[in-house]
Amino acid sequence: MPNRISVVGGTGALGGALALRYARAGLAVTIGSRDAVRAAAAAAKIAADAGCGQVTGLDNRAAAAAGDIVFVTVPFSSQEETLKAVRDACRGKIVVDTTVPLVPPKVARVQLPAQGSAAQIAAELLGPDVRVVSGLHNISATKLGMPGDPGCDVLVFGDDVDARGAIVDSLGGIGLRAFHAGPLANSAAAEAMTSVLISINKRHQVKDGAGIRITGPDLE
Amino acid sequence: MPNRISVVGGTGALGGALALRYARAGLAVTIGSRDAVRAAAAAAKIAADAGCGQVTGLDNRAAAAAGDIVFVTVPFSSQEETLKAVRDACRGKIVVDTTVPLVPPKVARVQLPAQGSAAQIAAELLGPDVRVVSGLHNISATKLGMPGDPGCDVLVFGDDVDARGAIVDSLGGIGLRAFHAGPLANSAAAEAMTSVLISINKRHQVKDGAGIRITGPDLE
Repeated sequence: MPNRISVVGGTGALGGALALRYARAGLAVTIGSRDAVRAAAAAAKIAADAGCGQVTGLDNRAAAAAGDIVFVTVPFSSQEETLKAVRDACRGKIVVDTTVPLVPPKVARVQLPAQGSAAQIAAELLGPDVRVVSGLHNISATKLGMPGDPGCDVLVFGDDVDARGAIVDSLGGIGLRAFHAGPLANSAAAEAMTSVLISINKRHQVKDGAGIRITGPDLE
Repeated sequence: MPNRISVVGGTGALGGALALRYARAGLAVTIGSRDAVRAAAAAAKIAADAGCGQVTGLDNRAAAAAGDIVFVTVPFSSQEETLKAVRDACRGKIVVDTTVPLVPPKVARVQLPAQGSAAQIAAELLGPDVRVVSGLHNISATKLGMPGDPGCDVLVFGDDVDARGAIVDSLGGIGLRAFHAGPLANSAAAEAMTSVLISINKRHQVKDGAGIRITGPDLE
């Protein structure tokens, strides 16, 4: 039986796009928001856009409780508050943190946190009972939400190799080319790359957002 | 008149490949090494491989003095000693630091330095009289040394936008697709990405080395 997917912070652009992609694949998705009414409205819109799938909206904590895999898609400034709110509901589950540690207003400048990466902050906040994975740092919401190949790859990080593999497979199931990219410490590479892509977007006026592809003769 | 290119640490794999690519393009290249005799031997081999161009070997300091653009291609463990040795010879020039801060034996794990990046260490060591740029972190020596399109892109970082642009253009002239990727602080993204690519090389047995491409609808 496929996993039930929850998207905490699913009323945002990235979370909504991710939920839409999972709904199109026919999976049951629960949208979380601080406000359950907003979550329900977002869920209804995503269900309508997808034309299929079962999409529900709940408050973040209830959404986390409803899922087998819990994606967290909130801004860096909300990461700590959000993870503390859902922590107990995530025991024993895989949590995929997608936080990019951008520090406004200079979002095109890499400003990694003292802990190394937002993924390592998530692991500290969630504790050893949660299987923390990170990913989806380098794909724009626009590309994630469109059907088919987004034209870029997705890097997945985690110290728990089985949890990481479950996410690589799950993302593969919704049409994303996902790579095992090493331990949580390596998440710094993708988190920092987001600021590089923002730099390139500005300079080259890439409206859908630049992405990255991993290339190599044995990877075609 | 095209710039004279120097490659400090040019007896290594990456530096040799870079010198070969410049020599093939017909530019005058000076190889630097701690040992001038080894540098001369490497230069002779590169000139023979290229079949054209003028390749000379000198000690690192003399090599740096001979160039308009000075690439530094040494292991992280030699970065400080090398930059101190060539600093005075680099006044007023563009130095392109290619150092990746790998910490053996765990080279597949991101371990960025406290300064943020090797590029920022280079800027500290070289001082304000040197125009520091960084780049070439995510291209293998094998791909860099082969003729034609290496199948991956190159990210170029620098606080001095004109110096960065000169390197983007220079690398473009030897067949590399190079991007302005932001200030020196952003070099952390590419330096960290090298460990991710090493992870992927191991897992997928990519013998020429995985690379990255920047993708986007306005970048084709």
